Amino acid sequence: MTGRRQPSEQTGEQPAEQPHAGAIAPLAVSLGDPAGIGPEVIAKAWAIRDAHRLPVFFAIGDRRSVEAVWDGPIAQISHPGAAAGVFGEALPLLQVDEPEAVTPGQPSESGARCALDSLETAVGLARSGAAAGLVTGPVSKAQLYSIGFRYPGQTEFVAERCGVAAENVAMMMVGPDLRTVPVTIHVPLGAVASSLTADLIVSRTRTAIRGLRRDFGIESPRIAVAGLNPHAGEGGRIGTEELDVIAPAIATLRQRGLGVSGPYSPDAMFHPSARLLYDAAICMYHDQALIPLKTLYFDLGVNVTLGLPLLRTSPDHGTAFPIAGRGEANPRAMIAAIALAGQCARTRQSNPAGA
Amino acid sequence: MTGRRQPSEQTGEQPAEQPHAGAIAPLAVSLGDPAGIGPEVIAKAWAIRDAHRLPVFFAIGDRRSVEAVWDGPIAQISHPGAAAGVFGEALPLLQVDEPEAVTPGQPSESGARCALDSLETAVGLARSGAAAGLVTGPVSKAQLYSIGFRYPGQTEFVAERCGVAAENVAMMMVGPDLRTVPVTIHVPLGAVASSLTADLIVSRTRTAIRGLRRDFGIESPRIAVAGLNPHAGEGGRIGTEELDVIAPAIATLRQRGLGVSGPYSPDAMFHPSARLLYDAAICMYHDQALIPLKTLYFDLGVNVTLGLPLLRTSPDHGTAFPIAGRGEANPRAMIAAIALAGQCARTRQSNPAGA
Repeated sequence: MTGRRQPSEQTGEQPAEQPHAGAIAPLAVSLGDPAGIGPEVIAKAWAIRDAHRLPVFFAIGDRRSVEAVWDGPIAQISHPGAAAGVFGEALPLLQVDEPEAVTPGQPSESGARCALDSLETAVGLARSGAAAGLVTGPVSKAQLYSIGFRYPGQTEFVAERCGVAAENVAMMMVGPDLRTVPVTIHVPLGAVASSLTADLIVSRTRTAIRGLRRDFGIESPRIAVAGLNPHAGEGGRIGTEELDVIAPAIATLRQRGLGVSGPYSPDAMFHPSARLLYDAAICMYHDQALIPLKTLYFDLGVNVTLGLPLLRTSPDHGTAFPIAGRGEANPRAMIAAIALAGQCARTRQSNPAGA
Repeated sequence: MTGRRQPSEQTGEQPAEQPHAGAIAPLAVSLGDPAGIGPEVIAKAWAIRDAHRLPVFFAIGDRRSVEAVWDGPIAQISHPGAAAGVFGEALPLLQVDEPEAVTPGQPSESGARCALDSLETAVGLARSGAAAGLVTGPVSKAQLYSIGFRYPGQTEFVAERCGVAAENVAMMMVGPDLRTVPVTIHVPLGAVASSLTADLIVSRTRTAIRGLRRDFGIESPRIAVAGLNPHAGEGGRIGTEELDVIAPAIATLRQRGLGVSGPYSPDAMFHPSARLLYDAAICMYHDQALIPLKTLYFDLGVNVTLGLPLLRTSPDHGTAFPIAGRGEANPRAMIAAIALAGQCARTRQSNPAGA
């Protein structure tokens, strides 16, 4: 043990008057596709929980998918409240309806149903408060589509289950010293310019600001808005969206007293000294947000969904079927996702009024 | 002096049979706009030439623009051949027709004419072989336009003076362990998709490969081609350019026996272990190439123009008029541009047949 404060779920002790350090309910971690690397990275995260000071969490999914790739201790629990008591000794696991046996690396419809059951259960527990937040393991969209899943991804599914329109959530990519929020996400590059509206930029930015206040404890976030075009358009010589769409959105946000500036040249926003100047960068498209994040922090990036009543993080990687079951999967992003969910849960709890 | 080999222009000695280490003609360095930071960073580069083992170079422009911002020694020369003899003692400078006096930080038409004279002279000396290559200081496009300059930038001007069509040159951004080549450059983002053709991708890639062979000494370059869309289109679900345009271009290049692969997910190409796998990344648009480079190497990036009969590099920054004359300009990119031009010149000289 180190001298750093830790949540003390296991004893039930509540450190008095220590914001960000109060006991929180355990986090629900869905295993994702049982044939992917989710079970392995979650088990590995548990195994080195102390070194990373991870908060208490429990896995949700099929126990066999963990046993197939890991020989550490698993404690099957029947409700989240039991997680804290066993977390020091074993990976707590809440079993969903047993699917047909799944082989690591071999995705199947049965596995997809298991992934969806796990996600649905995890969302329910996070909504009820039995879990302090939700960390989602990677799923295969192709497999989910094959069993009738109708959402672009887990984020939209979670939003719907929370009764929030997908336009009102924002995806924030979080690295050690960089947070980026794409305004458009899975849009072909050629359709990005026509998808951008001042309203959409305003909406995503406000969601980001609320999230930074509520979950990150940043009372007055500094927001840097990227341009769309090379050199942010050079005053209209290389595209006009900065003048027609982005600057008006920034003006609207500033009129509300928010600390928003830009549009900045997209290639000059992400070097170390630029990153010191803002709490989040609002980016116009997927790769404008993801290239800097993943160039710097390829296997550390965490995706946080803002705008939901519940906390949700996920590691920024996929199922990686080709390496599943080989023991090679890197748990760093999952560890970062669990750690960040814990930090955000404590922040939110210490400041329940939020933004 | 260190033990590392240096070109020995000053003595005229020619180390025998040492590729990359032979004596080269001096480099011509145009000062750029006399009111910008060009004179300052070039003088600063000269001042720390030994620490960076810079090859012999001489400045071209107005002596007074250097004197206004630097109090080190300047040796006016009348021809490039005189540079080596004075380089150890003073910054060699070839004076162009004296413009009206220019104040640092205050751009003017007179300054723009001086910048253009300097550039034109430098190109001529590099074309003739009197200079081993050309390093261009930053100019103000707005000022150049005001005196009738008709090119998008210095690159296109140099290409035209060399009799090369602008489509046949390529801009390569070079950092310590990353080289990127944008296929489209100063194109509004919304017009990128429609500007891309397989022919253009093939042409830029071939130019890049020839440049890597001739100027970087990489006999069989490994080329990674980026996708355009998020996740490289996910098999057509998020845009079809990968299938319709980029993959056919890659197939054409591979049929010629070139080491070209892709299209890769743009956000997964630039982290440290990915960068080990290629010698250059071919990028579909300006910021796809510039964001990773400048996120990692903001003030170290060098722009190399490939496809010209002459060598040309430039630091990847502008005139920075607001800080000109204050002594604050960072010479790192200029130093990197001069050093790289010297390396490329030696490589080219040791392998005159080129690609």
